[in-house]
Amino acid sequence: MPPRARRGRILAVAIDQKSGQPLYRQIYTHVRQCILDGRLAPGARLPSTRQLAADLRVSRSTAVQAYEQLRAEGYIEGLGGAETRVTDTLPDSFVRAGVRDADTSVPLRSVLAPSARARATAACVRRAMLPVGMGPRAFRAGVPAVDVFPVDTWGRIMARRWSRTPARDLAYGDPFGYRPLREAIADYLRAARGVRCTADQVMVVAGSQQALDLAARVILDPGDKVWLEDPGYHGARGAFTAAGGTIVPVPVDQDGLDVMAGRTLAPDARLAFVTPSRQLPLGATMSLTRRLALLEWAAASRAAIFEDDYDSEFRYASRPLPALQGLDRAGCVLYAGTFSKVTFPSMRLGYLVVPPSLVDAFGAARHFADFHSPFLEQAVMTDFIVEGHFERHIRRMRAIYHERQVLLVNLARERLGGLLDVRPADAGMTVVGWLGGGMDDVATARAAERAGLYVLAVSPLAVRPLPPALLLGYAGVRDDEIREGVNRLGIVLEQVARSRAPNEIRHTLMVGSVA
Amino acid sequence: MPPRARRGRILAVAIDQKSGQPLYRQIYTHVRQCILDGRLAPGARLPSTRQLAADLRVSRSTAVQAYEQLRAEGYIEGLGGAETRVTDTLPDSFVRAGVRDADTSVPLRSVLAPSARARATAACVRRAMLPVGMGPRAFRAGVPAVDVFPVDTWGRIMARRWSRTPARDLAYGDPFGYRPLREAIADYLRAARGVRCTADQVMVVAGSQQALDLAARVILDPGDKVWLEDPGYHGARGAFTAAGGTIVPVPVDQDGLDVMAGRTLAPDARLAFVTPSRQLPLGATMSLTRRLALLEWAAASRAAIFEDDYDSEFRYASRPLPALQGLDRAGCVLYAGTFSKVTFPSMRLGYLVVPPSLVDAFGAARHFADFHSPFLEQAVMTDFIVEGHFERHIRRMRAIYHERQVLLVNLARERLGGLLDVRPADAGMTVVGWLGGGMDDVATARAAERAGLYVLAVSPLAVRPLPPALLLGYAGVRDDEIREGVNRLGIVLEQVARSRAPNEIRHTLMVGSVA
Repeated sequence: MPPRARRGRILAVAIDQKSGQPLYRQIYTHVRQCILDGRLAPGARLPSTRQLAADLRVSRSTAVQAYEQLRAEGYIEGLGGAETRVTDTLPDSFVRAGVRDADTSVPLRSVLAPSARARATAACVRRAMLPVGMGPRAFRAGVPAVDVFPVDTWGRIMARRWSRTPARDLAYGDPFGYRPLREAIADYLRAARGVRCTADQVMVVAGSQQALDLAARVILDPGDKVWLEDPGYHGARGAFTAAGGTIVPVPVDQDGLDVMAGRTLAPDARLAFVTPSRQLPLGATMSLTRRLALLEWAAASRAAIFEDDYDSEFRYASRPLPALQGLDRAGCVLYAGTFSKVTFPSMRLGYLVVPPSLVDAFGAARHFADFHSPFLEQAVMTDFIVEGHFERHIRRMRAIYHERQVLLVNLARERLGGLLDVRPADAGMTVVGWLGGGMDDVATARAAERAGLYVLAVSPLAVRPLPPALLLGYAGVRDDEIREGVNRLGIVLEQVARSRAPNEIRHTLMVGSVA
Repeated sequence: MPPRARRGRILAVAIDQKSGQPLYRQIYTHVRQCILDGRLAPGARLPSTRQLAADLRVSRSTAVQAYEQLRAEGYIEGLGGAETRVTDTLPDSFVRAGVRDADTSVPLRSVLAPSARARATAACVRRAMLPVGMGPRAFRAGVPAVDVFPVDTWGRIMARRWSRTPARDLAYGDPFGYRPLREAIADYLRAARGVRCTADQVMVVAGSQQALDLAARVILDPGDKVWLEDPGYHGARGAFTAAGGTIVPVPVDQDGLDVMAGRTLAPDARLAFVTPSRQLPLGATMSLTRRLALLEWAAASRAAIFEDDYDSEFRYASRPLPALQGLDRAGCVLYAGTFSKVTFPSMRLGYLVVPPSLVDAFGAARHFADFHSPFLEQAVMTDFIVEGHFERHIRRMRAIYHERQVLLVNLARERLGGLLDVRPADAGMTVVGWLGGGMDDVATARAAERAGLYVLAVSPLAVRPLPPALLLGYAGVRDDEIREGVNRLGIVLEQVARSRAPNEIRHTLMVGSVA
């Protein structure tokens, strides 16, 4: 055996003096790679740092640094002298697995499968044909008129708030949110929505979607039944599915959720999801009789009611109805609303009002979900409300949305008559269009998407059969975009109707021939 | 029957002309209250609007407005003429329930109980004795030095970003986050942490806590087993509990998680939670042998590894170790980190790197959890990284934290010797102090809290018996606060030790007498 081998193998490190990488790092990387790809076997002796330094013509301290790093990470053992060796407890399978690919940017194939509930949750996205990324576009539902948001006012408040933020508000905060914002929200909800609450009951959340997610987990155990309006909000379906709830679709009519049907289908449900101000997607207002019947059922069966008051601020034909929560005397109602529709969605702020006895449970759930909402947005939102910008902006939006809806309904009547029957709505940010000519709403929504339009097919939101319909959002769509969008939708609908017609005729003929 | 009764009851509304409330609203409120508290029974006739206007000396249109609102809400039926009646389908139980309390600010007692998992989650908060609200204080763990954060730089970037934000970025965004930030994170993680990833795999989350919450739900079904380091991070315990996971505590030693023990205790676990860079709370670095053994187990059993790399940036004695994720060849590792420790926590930003095949599942889970992180923070963070402020700030923090730790350890040695053995740590933002004199860590932490100090008792983080110890955070504590805090902690410890001593002596005597 030549003397060199006894002193440890020669390490052929290609030192690059001009590389940005320090010398010790180059040595470290090379040795590590040799160990990982099997060129240096477990237990193999390495040169002493003195020898290594001489071999590679680097300083002794460079060699020491490289070995220290390798030792710190467990690749080598020994003190850097003659007894330095490759750690021999490295599993063979790993060392031999041919990990030659040092390219850190190469994605990996995974052996992992998502959980059953994660697969069911992903199916909710596909079912409702939800896009990833949701910029404003004709006729995307739920996106407000962000182009007329008073960004200068917001920016001014933000600069002032940031410059005055004490260091403690940069650290962690209360899971329930920034106290002054909770006070402002409680004031607003008591006056404008008839909600019975104090600030102690108000949690600031990341939009009403997080309110749904938290409520689902605080109220439901896996397998528990939930009443969901049928057709109903896909965001609620997703949150309840993610929580392992068993969804019981309960029919809706012009008075909202059919409480008697719910009691028949699942009297033992733990939670009922409702949109009493304006049913999503069809737009009915829940009648007082139904509201009281729902509250009576919930109180008697100790079930919770999730009231999603998502766009109650925009009512054109009559005054806003007070919240269902204000009629609750048994503490059954979880009341949620969002700032997304009345300010801008990418801020991610909303609120959830919970009964006092559930405050601890919601605080713990929020703590382990994501701690709390960001501080600065909450602080700016507080001033935006307290200084009156908030209600001023709502009034302005209400006027703009009403005009946009009238424009959309009128243009649709002129251009889409016979193809899509678009009905005016007395509130909200969307209208429903009923499809004529035997057109399928899913196929139509797909064809519209290919034409650069986004319309939500209603039938995937329902379990029971429903006439085909599309949900059209207009709030975030400018007048010129509405005109252009209606024209383009007209072309799409004509194409779909044409391609549909022969099938229908064929189908009719076949049925006829069998008879 | 007097003629008036036939035309409907007289409504004695106390009209207040000077009240800020419109007249119609005063009438509406009064009638509604009469119906709800039973003064107006279901089916009762109401005066016509003409009669009501005359009775109350208000204009006819005011009366019409009041009735319209009552009708819209379902309290009355009929057209406002002689046939207007209280709706007779209102449930009696509700109407008679004596809902006289119109004070909307009174909190309600609730009939609801939280779910079993919500109760278990709340117990995790109590177990770890977590406070609600987490401002910086001596010796709160996990809070960085927010007082030296470059707020002016951040404010300047924020103002620039806000003024240039296009309207579309005010609307909804991608559940995975703002693309340029994902690119910046991927670049940083590849270079600084040896993580193998592309931006497609990076999700921007609300701190590592949300990463835990999402991972728990995407990987685990209720009842699935999870390895948790024992002692281990309470945030992980909470997230896995909230997701219905069954926690299997796996011992840790100076090499980190004992993989062999894990394989014996629960070979079929679906997920293993580890803090390889620096074990939380005890501070060990996971050895390479253990890392490889963990990866081997995970790959063979198709289990996931959650690598929480929570404060890897702060390493004083040696260079940072590359992430476990970089050694993974089976796509088993979910890698999470946070910006909370290196910038400021109230921004709520962190990141999660997932295998490509799980991107859809995580996107759906995030969509239904809270859609996505706020836009502006993400945009500002992007510039903060790309312009070099981020790494500059890390280097500055590293120097400050090291100084603070040395100060704390030295002062503790002088002042607390024999009471609390505080060991230096080569990384991170906390040190462990081992309690002497038979003191209980929970009792000591409680006594410290009464003295205005926050220290985390370690034993509640463990399932197996552990010598009593306290976790002391120093990163966010100024030098003068460290001095003052150590003094005050000395007084607390002396008191606890004194009150403890007689018990110990008694106990020894009793044991002696029995023998």
